[in-house]
Amino acid sequence: MKIAISIGDPNGIGLEIALKAHEKISEFCHPVYFAGIDLFEQAAEKLDLKLPKNLVFVSPAPACTIHPGITTAEAGAYSFASFKKAVDAVKTKECDAVVTLPINKESWMKAGINYKGHTDALRDFFKKEAIMMLGCEKMYVALFTEHIPLKEVPQKIKKETLVKFLTDFQKETGAKKIGVLGLNPHAGDNGVLGNEEQIITEAIKEANQTIIQHPTSNIQHPTFIGPLVPDIAFSPKMRESFKYYVAMYHDQGLAPLKALYFDESINVSLNLPIVRTSVDHGTAFDIAYQKNRPVNLKSYIEAVKAAIEIKQKRDSR
Amino acid sequence: MKIAISIGDPNGIGLEIALKAHEKISEFCHPVYFAGIDLFEQAAEKLDLKLPKNLVFVSPAPACTIHPGITTAEAGAYSFASFKKAVDAVKTKECDAVVTLPINKESWMKAGINYKGHTDALRDFFKKEAIMMLGCEKMYVALFTEHIPLKEVPQKIKKETLVKFLTDFQKETGAKKIGVLGLNPHAGDNGVLGNEEQIITEAIKEANQTIIQHPTSNIQHPTFIGPLVPDIAFSPKMRESFKYYVAMYHDQGLAPLKALYFDESINVSLNLPIVRTSVDHGTAFDIAYQKNRPVNLKSYIEAVKAAIEIKQKRDSR
Repeated sequence: MKIAISIGDPNGIGLEIALKAHEKISEFCHPVYFAGIDLFEQAAEKLDLKLPKNLVFVSPAPACTIHPGITTAEAGAYSFASFKKAVDAVKTKECDAVVTLPINKESWMKAGINYKGHTDALRDFFKKEAIMMLGCEKMYVALFTEHIPLKEVPQKIKKETLVKFLTDFQKETGAKKIGVLGLNPHAGDNGVLGNEEQIITEAIKEANQTIIQHPTSNIQHPTFIGPLVPDIAFSPKMRESFKYYVAMYHDQGLAPLKALYFDESINVSLNLPIVRTSVDHGTAFDIAYQKNRPVNLKSYIEAVKAAIEIKQKRDSR
Repeated sequence: MKIAISIGDPNGIGLEIALKAHEKISEFCHPVYFAGIDLFEQAAEKLDLKLPKNLVFVSPAPACTIHPGITTAEAGAYSFASFKKAVDAVKTKECDAVVTLPINKESWMKAGINYKGHTDALRDFFKKEAIMMLGCEKMYVALFTEHIPLKEVPQKIKKETLVKFLTDFQKETGAKKIGVLGLNPHAGDNGVLGNEEQIITEAIKEANQTIIQHPTSNIQHPTFIGPLVPDIAFSPKMRESFKYYVAMYHDQGLAPLKALYFDESINVSLNLPIVRTSVDHGTAFDIAYQKNRPVNLKSYIEAVKAAIEIKQKRDSR
């Protein structure tokens, strides 16, 4: 399987991760790097690493100079071009899936690229409501709302959009049991601590009916269970019951996830025509291009593995 | 040290925990149970347990009949009387601290007791702003807002109340380093995802100055650090730096805490004239009075230990 690797911000830790993990990921796929050989040579020199001989490059833009840990328009334009060309290569079936290394939003802004991030850009590229799911083999969380102020979250809890989100998410994952979180402390405590759980309850009911009614469905009901009490939902006992969760907002899902599985978590974009996974960390400008410092490759390797798995699952449908 | 044990709802798992942990907690304190001998006899019979010979009782109310797993006005009135008398015994210095077993809010309501819970009642008893802190030896989280709907949280973020909360919390714990969480995803991302972090930043600054300016202070600044990015704040690396956290709302602090340390967590009321700790779980009506079923005593034993420690720390000041 050919995996398009979007290289991320050249001034961050993306190139180092790509170089150091190349041998490992080559065991289970053929990586195609969307970065010029000049960039790899600069990175290898700065890090005292030997450039592997069997790298496959696609140069997405003119040469770029590495300035470790600094946001520049040049780096922003380069990382966006790398991402765009990698996605295009999957669209045209030259590659099977895209794995993205971290970009820097400020660098994108300096280059005049106004997307909030990869997922936001993918929504625009494909004009589809991408679903952001984070997690690892042990636990996945999909975010019903993402990068919005907390005070805007409650008004976003609407039955129709939630039903669509739930059914799309189930279709993409094939999950047979999905825990859906409430919004308020104690899931509202019967309305005493908030009433959005009424909407969530109705959406769960409708989503369960939709799935059962679907003519090709062979799912035993109910698939969606909730609204779960948010602070109990990720306790060890609950995690025995649930692998897939839907969180109503960013920190509700990601704070417990990262408390438990920080290093191994990845980011997956669902509900798109292409398969895209990503590391679940940033550019780490503070430690970029420091020699002889251990770097954690786990999230990247897991992201590559997940991309392959999801693609295989899709193809077998 | 004499620990007043408020027995909780007689129809829940409180009596079983008290009975099964009696020998263990007697190793490090003298427990005084605020429940009649009749109640202990009923519980012991239902559970096929032998009544320990050295129990010290204070009967808080007329006899009460156990109805496992059911909310009743009788049980509500009894558990409230047990709590009230246990607190009074600490007020009058007959006991040194109070440890509470779980009550049921619906039973309290049936008995005409309208407090939302123990902490709410303690605020009223002492006319003081009790601080609710949950956690265990590895990590404690204080809640700046507690049992309110999520949509009401953002408007509660006010500088003056937050400064007072932070300095009160520091005074009570003596913590030298406290992580203060932001409110929004990515702690607002420089205002793009919400702006309450401005208020939090100012409150942190002022609280740090207050502590340094205090004439008896020997604290190296800064004590309060933040606003921390909420979904990263409890990652393994951050937990190496922080033992004490202040969360802006209920689930922000408790979902990660319970994901990590569900069984051993306890609830501590700070900023009150008396020391009170509690188990961090409910009445467990679904499993109450089922014989030969393992029951987790960890939270209760930790709560008793913490009550003793906090009392000793206070006395030594």
